[in-house]
Amino acid sequence: MDIETRRNADPDHWKLASAIRILAMDAVEAANSGHPGMPMGMADVATVLFRKHLKFDASAPNWFDRDRFVLSAGHGSMLLYALLHLTGYKQMTIGQIKNFRQLGSITAGHPEYGHAEGIETTTGPLGQGIATAVGMAMAEEAMRAEFGADLCDHRTWVIAGDGCLMEGISHEAVGLAGNQQLGRLIVLWDNNDITIDGRVSLSDKTDQMARFAAAGWRVLECDGHDAADIDRALTEAAQEDGRPVLVSCKTIIGFGAPNKADSSKAHGSPLGADEIAATRKGYGWDDTTPFEIPGDIAQSWHEIGARGETIRKEWQSRVDVLSADSRDEFARRISNDTHPELAKTVALVKQQTSEEQPKLATRKASENVLAALNPLMAENFGGSADLTGSNNTLTPEMGIFGPENRTGRYIHYGIREHGMAAAMNGIWLHGGFRPYGGTFLTFTDYARGAMRLSALMGLPVVYVMTHDSIGLGEDGPTHQPVEHLAICRATPNTLTLRPCDQVETAEAWEIALSESGTPAVMALSRQNLPTLRTSHSDENLSRKGAYILREATGGKPAVVLMATGSEVEIAVAARETLEAEGTPTRVVSVPSMELFRAQSREYRAEVLPGNTVRVAVEAAIRQPWEWLLLGERGNEAKSAFVGMEGFGASAPAPALYKEFGITAEAVTERVRSLL
Amino acid sequence: MDIETRRNADPDHWKLASAIRILAMDAVEAANSGHPGMPMGMADVATVLFRKHLKFDASAPNWFDRDRFVLSAGHGSMLLYALLHLTGYKQMTIGQIKNFRQLGSITAGHPEYGHAEGIETTTGPLGQGIATAVGMAMAEEAMRAEFGADLCDHRTWVIAGDGCLMEGISHEAVGLAGNQQLGRLIVLWDNNDITIDGRVSLSDKTDQMARFAAAGWRVLECDGHDAADIDRALTEAAQEDGRPVLVSCKTIIGFGAPNKADSSKAHGSPLGADEIAATRKGYGWDDTTPFEIPGDIAQSWHEIGARGETIRKEWQSRVDVLSADSRDEFARRISNDTHPELAKTVALVKQQTSEEQPKLATRKASENVLAALNPLMAENFGGSADLTGSNNTLTPEMGIFGPENRTGRYIHYGIREHGMAAAMNGIWLHGGFRPYGGTFLTFTDYARGAMRLSALMGLPVVYVMTHDSIGLGEDGPTHQPVEHLAICRATPNTLTLRPCDQVETAEAWEIALSESGTPAVMALSRQNLPTLRTSHSDENLSRKGAYILREATGGKPAVVLMATGSEVEIAVAARETLEAEGTPTRVVSVPSMELFRAQSREYRAEVLPGNTVRVAVEAAIRQPWEWLLLGERGNEAKSAFVGMEGFGASAPAPALYKEFGITAEAVTERVRSLL
Repeated sequence: MDIETRRNADPDHWKLASAIRILAMDAVEAANSGHPGMPMGMADVATVLFRKHLKFDASAPNWFDRDRFVLSAGHGSMLLYALLHLTGYKQMTIGQIKNFRQLGSITAGHPEYGHAEGIETTTGPLGQGIATAVGMAMAEEAMRAEFGADLCDHRTWVIAGDGCLMEGISHEAVGLAGNQQLGRLIVLWDNNDITIDGRVSLSDKTDQMARFAAAGWRVLECDGHDAADIDRALTEAAQEDGRPVLVSCKTIIGFGAPNKADSSKAHGSPLGADEIAATRKGYGWDDTTPFEIPGDIAQSWHEIGARGETIRKEWQSRVDVLSADSRDEFARRISNDTHPELAKTVALVKQQTSEEQPKLATRKASENVLAALNPLMAENFGGSADLTGSNNTLTPEMGIFGPENRTGRYIHYGIREHGMAAAMNGIWLHGGFRPYGGTFLTFTDYARGAMRLSALMGLPVVYVMTHDSIGLGEDGPTHQPVEHLAICRATPNTLTLRPCDQVETAEAWEIALSESGTPAVMALSRQNLPTLRTSHSDENLSRKGAYILREATGGKPAVVLMATGSEVEIAVAARETLEAEGTPTRVVSVPSMELFRAQSREYRAEVLPGNTVRVAVEAAIRQPWEWLLLGERGNEAKSAFVGMEGFGASAPAPALYKEFGITAEAVTERVRSLL
Repeated sequence: MDIETRRNADPDHWKLASAIRILAMDAVEAANSGHPGMPMGMADVATVLFRKHLKFDASAPNWFDRDRFVLSAGHGSMLLYALLHLTGYKQMTIGQIKNFRQLGSITAGHPEYGHAEGIETTTGPLGQGIATAVGMAMAEEAMRAEFGADLCDHRTWVIAGDGCLMEGISHEAVGLAGNQQLGRLIVLWDNNDITIDGRVSLSDKTDQMARFAAAGWRVLECDGHDAADIDRALTEAAQEDGRPVLVSCKTIIGFGAPNKADSSKAHGSPLGADEIAATRKGYGWDDTTPFEIPGDIAQSWHEIGARGETIRKEWQSRVDVLSADSRDEFARRISNDTHPELAKTVALVKQQTSEEQPKLATRKASENVLAALNPLMAENFGGSADLTGSNNTLTPEMGIFGPENRTGRYIHYGIREHGMAAAMNGIWLHGGFRPYGGTFLTFTDYARGAMRLSALMGLPVVYVMTHDSIGLGEDGPTHQPVEHLAICRATPNTLTLRPCDQVETAEAWEIALSESGTPAVMALSRQNLPTLRTSHSDENLSRKGAYILREATGGKPAVVLMATGSEVEIAVAARETLEAEGTPTRVVSVPSMELFRAQSREYRAEVLPGNTVRVAVEAAIRQPWEWLLLGERGNEAKSAFVGMEGFGASAPAPALYKEFGITAEAVTERVRSLL
């Protein structure tokens, strides 16, 4: 069907969709950078969605019961910015659109969560959006079950491209959503048959409809440039039947660009002035001034933006009639505020921890802490990537979340680390829950893509990463993290916590669960460890990142031993020997380098004075320790690191610690050689 | 069907399969650690495979034309070790089996490539095996096309479990294999319906048969405990029709264990003495001595191990009659030896690089180097995860590898970074090719799982990682690597190369392509850079890791500026200013920290003398620089780092460098404040 016929089929729709296309073309042209093809291809679908289906109110972007709209194909950011601008989101001014991709604008190259209201999540790394949306849809189901459909009753809509569907993470998301029967999750597939390298068939011939159906999805199709057909498909999609929905929208990338449409030339670079002029003409768009939207079209779009006002007000009136207590709790939950009794409960766990108790793995200590917290904190939403018994993430009262039990608060994520991490981002973004999820620390590798987005967006989700060193033993080097603490510490805005016993584990959970803008990685041991904290101060010493765990005799250390997690025990044992030899030795526990770095210079110098020998012990690589070993100190200090230099091996844990020389004897020897 | 009926259906088969099960139970019991359930469940399938289908000769484990057997479900390692032992692989003695999971044994918890002949690849992290096998199967197709079916004519068999099929990487592998029509790739799915957390349905209800069919696979089924039915299915699977094959083998985990079979209790821990005794009885296995295999059964297994000897010898005779030149080239290729003219060709590229040429991105310089090397090196097998034009990885003569062109040497991997990385591992492991593949450096995150295995196995594949900093500009923080150089440098046995111009890029390629045991990550710029190497010494200076690029006036530096890649230009500009101010300033280019660390202490002290101010410049985080800034030096030195402290932003590159203070002015200011 030619453009002319399309134009005449539904002129009102055509003008609305053209406005999106014009803004996308013009913004990319002005920036001399960006992706015009996708917004031009999906403008019709997005127009019908916003005009007739999406529940939203542009005047109240953070209204809790809005439908969530996720642009998984984040390179098409101008589609989203254009929609937000046209429907009247206050922050998304025409000035911001004109400053697309410029420093300080809210219109970044890819949508950045936090830059502007209406951007529900950061996308760009392909597949993240669809996987994050699965978390949003689960959170919606759970909140509806808990608070009722009067307060929570909305859908999650996703626009995803071929790239999203090729990425492995999409498989994890699709499988999880199918199993969870997320009937209010609707994915609109921009089926344009083009990737950067050319036709999709160059790299993929998957029958996507059959693939989604195999995972328990309902699959629909539409002509992505026919407003009536799109409307029919979206109407059908919204008729919930317990299966998530894929709508294949057959589109043309760069729709209407005479020389670049339907090719990768329209994907990722400006069309150029001539092509834009020709495209405008084809659209029947008379105004040649960039960014100019005729008043009647602007007005129609604004009316669309106000469509949801009435139902939003009805929702608000239902909230208003709640009892004060219910309203407060609902408000606390949807604003993701920390539970008021968290600190008190953690203090209790600390008090109940006895130094005489049997040795305990920190993963088990973590379970003990969760057993105290989860009954209290209805917002804690746990899970594991099929390692529940190993990660110790399930507490009895949680119940298993699933189609038959939406009040369950524990998710069997399956063997899907990446999908789990992205879903946790989505759960937090939706509001109402604090997600945590477990796997082995080494499988940070599988989840990295979404873990980085937790950090970039500033979402305080909690990664429960057990089996955190060679201490896991026989499973061998594939399962033994060596570089992963360095990786987490290298990632901006990520809190790496490696507690040494149950007291520090409780403190670590307190820190993680009171965070509002930073994800936490809890590195926990498989092997049993002694209780080392000898006084149960209510103060959360771990919050300082590093602190004096054992003071040197006389308070004037000649040696400072630093360690984290399972190696603190080794440092404490080495101190015994050194002290017995007459060497005043301090042990500093370092549960979090990031928190220690944030302390005052004075505090840091107090904990790590100059003119001492310094030895750090950690069953991992040295890289993150250099600044503590070499920096910020008196020049006379000498230092050494006792840890790993390469990959691990398969053997019982004690044999490995001996083999790799991570023992109290090795520490004392290094100290002696430095003294 | 009960055990009794199974036993009597085919007693010869039963005994052979029982031997595997006995060894698996006993080894896990002796180690008090491991996974008995999977070997017990898949023993029948594996027995039929080795007895009747797999082309191999236990006396010549590295015979090039053998079928490849990949145990993707690597936790079932005892299945593989039992098979290798029973068929007579020399290294796999009963002593090794008895030492399962012990220090120094070749029988690690998960199969480790290099530990023993017959272990084709390291597995354990789920999904890696199937994705690696895709690379092996592609390499087989390509070698067959190049050298003929007389020399290369074999299949790739994979055993994969539910975990492998849930992982995202399996989606990428399945899609790639389907598109490439790898008809000789056969995946045997251990369809036992159990994961660690319980029934598969807890987390997944995917119709795997429909899923694979949707991706262009042929799907077959069999009763995984019925030898005749397995044989029928494998026979059918081996009848090539251009589609890769999935065989669903319906099995029972821990088959025959009366109290633990068909439950996750059989998965990952020893069965215990009583359960083993009862299981033995059910098998009709009279001998109660652990690890004892009756002579007739041992003999039958040895005969299976020798099955392939004749066809191996026939193959050898076909190799022997090749012309000396053909034989030498074939031998060089299958042993993955470095091309003899590599160094000469790189030297030529260096000589042809002019300092007067226009500024050039190192990704473009990389393309120039490849344009010189690829026509020469038939072993170079390139590709990109759908960023061909951005990674500059395709040179004209390569041709596109695909079902219609098996002599093509470039793979459109699709938007599948993880699948690409694993496939590259498989291509190298197969032999015959040196794979390289491109994506953006930030998508290291997506490929980490397989990149770590490159390092752990010691496979010198090359990751061409372009857009290596905020210098990529407008795409913003999701696309801008900040921590990824630290991640690569933190990973053991990984060579991170960040060249500053075309000369260093040529040297980096020479290093990468002459490696035999270490993968390389080439970090390349999107933005244009000047040519900085002023003399075209034939010596590969980058091999030293760091070297003096610009000497201080008088040869006695007061200041040493260190930098890599795109920031070397900044260091050089800062030096100009400082020298003009009378401050003798040296610039050290640091293309590879790993290589510099491997130099002698003397050389390192020569390049980085004490008693100077040291400033490092890199548009990334500081963590990997600490040892160069703080360590190994005279005490009077003072240091600073000019780089990134957090995530990037969306804006043109020059604006970002200014915004984040990574400029020559910032460097000179820091130096002045330290002097």
